[in-house]
Amino acid sequence: MPKISEKAHSMPASPIRKLVPYAEAAKAKGLIVYHLNIGQPDIDTPQVALDAVRNLDRTVIEYSHSAGFESYRKGLSDYYKKNNLPVETEDIIITTGGSEALTFGFMSCCNPGDEVIIPEPFYANYNGFAIQAGLKVVPVTASIETGFALPPVEEFEKKITAKTKAIVICNPGNPTGYLYSKEELEKLRDIVKKHDLFLFADEVYREFCYDGATPFSVMNLSGIEQNVILIDSVSKRYSMCGARIGALISKNKEVMNAALKFGQARLSPPTLAQIASEAALNTPDSYFEEVVNEYVERRDIMVDGLNAIPGVFCPKPKGAFYCVAKFPVDDAEKFCQWLLEEFEFNGQTVMMAPANGFYSTPGKGKQEARIAYVLNKESLKNAVTCLEEALKVYPGRV
Amino acid sequence: MPKISEKAHSMPASPIRKLVPYAEAAKAKGLIVYHLNIGQPDIDTPQVALDAVRNLDRTVIEYSHSAGFESYRKGLSDYYKKNNLPVETEDIIITTGGSEALTFGFMSCCNPGDEVIIPEPFYANYNGFAIQAGLKVVPVTASIETGFALPPVEEFEKKITAKTKAIVICNPGNPTGYLYSKEELEKLRDIVKKHDLFLFADEVYREFCYDGATPFSVMNLSGIEQNVILIDSVSKRYSMCGARIGALISKNKEVMNAALKFGQARLSPPTLAQIASEAALNTPDSYFEEVVNEYVERRDIMVDGLNAIPGVFCPKPKGAFYCVAKFPVDDAEKFCQWLLEEFEFNGQTVMMAPANGFYSTPGKGKQEARIAYVLNKESLKNAVTCLEEALKVYPGRV
Repeated sequence: MPKISEKAHSMPASPIRKLVPYAEAAKAKGLIVYHLNIGQPDIDTPQVALDAVRNLDRTVIEYSHSAGFESYRKGLSDYYKKNNLPVETEDIIITTGGSEALTFGFMSCCNPGDEVIIPEPFYANYNGFAIQAGLKVVPVTASIETGFALPPVEEFEKKITAKTKAIVICNPGNPTGYLYSKEELEKLRDIVKKHDLFLFADEVYREFCYDGATPFSVMNLSGIEQNVILIDSVSKRYSMCGARIGALISKNKEVMNAALKFGQARLSPPTLAQIASEAALNTPDSYFEEVVNEYVERRDIMVDGLNAIPGVFCPKPKGAFYCVAKFPVDDAEKFCQWLLEEFEFNGQTVMMAPANGFYSTPGKGKQEARIAYVLNKESLKNAVTCLEEALKVYPGRV
Repeated sequence: MPKISEKAHSMPASPIRKLVPYAEAAKAKGLIVYHLNIGQPDIDTPQVALDAVRNLDRTVIEYSHSAGFESYRKGLSDYYKKNNLPVETEDIIITTGGSEALTFGFMSCCNPGDEVIIPEPFYANYNGFAIQAGLKVVPVTASIETGFALPPVEEFEKKITAKTKAIVICNPGNPTGYLYSKEELEKLRDIVKKHDLFLFADEVYREFCYDGATPFSVMNLSGIEQNVILIDSVSKRYSMCGARIGALISKNKEVMNAALKFGQARLSPPTLAQIASEAALNTPDSYFEEVVNEYVERRDIMVDGLNAIPGVFCPKPKGAFYCVAKFPVDDAEKFCQWLLEEFEFNGQTVMMAPANGFYSTPGKGKQEARIAYVLNKESLKNAVTCLEEALKVYPGRV
């Protein structure tokens, strides 16, 4: 039997999935499990997007252009301009999710063996995309004590070598919910410019900014227009994660031409989902107002609830729909597993994603877990109560 | 400005696209251009698939399982069993097109630097997937004179080195339309077994077999169950190329576990297209009978028409909807460009894909072009007439 590849061996297990068998066993016992582990919102997809699918007027589901339907790219350019991002139609390649955008970006910009610096904790699948492209992830650690603010410039400088090719950020951040300020991004801009690196910015949570905060995009950093690569996706914006429509965006023509060649090899992004995504551009502002209000309430229930539990610390994020909390436990992975295997409160328990899987440095985040507040308020209240009760009896409490 | 990657530089231009600017210029002059260059059929998608999309009853377009909806995988297993392929639900990972299936397969099985042997001419995008995975394509040349039959076993043996990890075939073949016999596949089986290689088989044209021929699948080769990886797709079968739904299929659990990790990194295949694909499993047999009859008539118009032109030779294929023809010209690429730039007959001309882009060996296929007979019969007749008239006046005729 021929051997599988080394890349396959080094692909990490997903931190949001590793406890799935325990959750299934808990459900088999009849427990209600509150899934705080996965970023699949329960919010409805906008009606205009669903209607576009239901009113499909094609009789052949054909390929689109490899860069996506031109009408969609044009509409998307308008969306960015409305959000003050200077993005022209030709700066956009529609991809199969943000995942493919980052894969194409890595493949287009980096050689195997190159290093990419990523502030940790970071979205765990960046590891998988880096492995596919043969890249080494070099973490710079952000601390829960500072609410996961951008680590000091010196920390980045320390990690830069001749092999460093890019910095990757997610803003607003998954898993932390942290929203980088203009000042923080300008610091990054200076590093990028000084060392002539690419700056990949995953801004898929742009719409989810709270307390009056407005996101500052890397597309508005002047002086590094040729270095910036924006990763975007409709998954979270319109609660249509299953569409698998994203975008790779850059002013750098060489990068765009390269990425299009990878795009042509896979022919086209999904046609039906592009139809839904193009229609979603007409989502009324009221949709986002409602959704943002809902998430603010959910965040407050979750984060305020967590901080009210003795020994728990959770910075209050200004964006996305995640938070990372520190628990007074020996090991958050054990705690999360124990919640599913051993604990129940009134027939309920909670599933969280242990945060160690979001750190690249071994041992980091050992007491932390990521929580996605994507459930209704009642469920979130119950989940907080479960955690409070659990910590009263967890044998590994410290 | 940071440099783009070496992979990006080595990605070849698509042979079906390189003449697009000339075709656009021809159309701008008012010419009718018969597009024989691209495998986008004009056949309608089955009504059941379109209806499933139009009757969408979800309000959230959620992720599916990373391996695809279980109900779809189950239905697909039934489809294979009906076609006498022993494929169980757990042997299937739903992918974003056959493209992603091959990418996952390469990434799971091969290390950068490994070699994959592919009979040429072959589907040109295999080059792109190989480059992405860092693999070297080693061609074994099939000859138009033998109708593109499998090259002799000795030709394969000659190319096998310590780095050879897999053989890749497409059956029925794109671009040749050649259908491998059971005997040819058993010869491949013996090589694969002897050298413990993976055998990737792209069988996406399974339904398109003519003159009473039935396809023999690699899934039915006994003794190499752990070596075989089947690549499939709904694109051609149901004329829904834009769905971007394919499948990676293997009995090798280690490969499937590896491929699922790559699948988890990209979260899920497209949900809407999976709904269409699952519904398409209920396409009535009459649909395929009609489609096959239509393609047989189209093939006969095209291939018989080409062979009636003095100096043209085109083996009559038993499968898919492509053929490769040899023209009495100095250089088929020049000829194809001249057809678009210089020629017209009654306001019409033809676009073909020069076959050199389907060969890996430099200089091979210089007089050949690939033709996709995916247009209606009237258009195909006109296209043949154009080619006949063109060859009367082409200055590079030999």
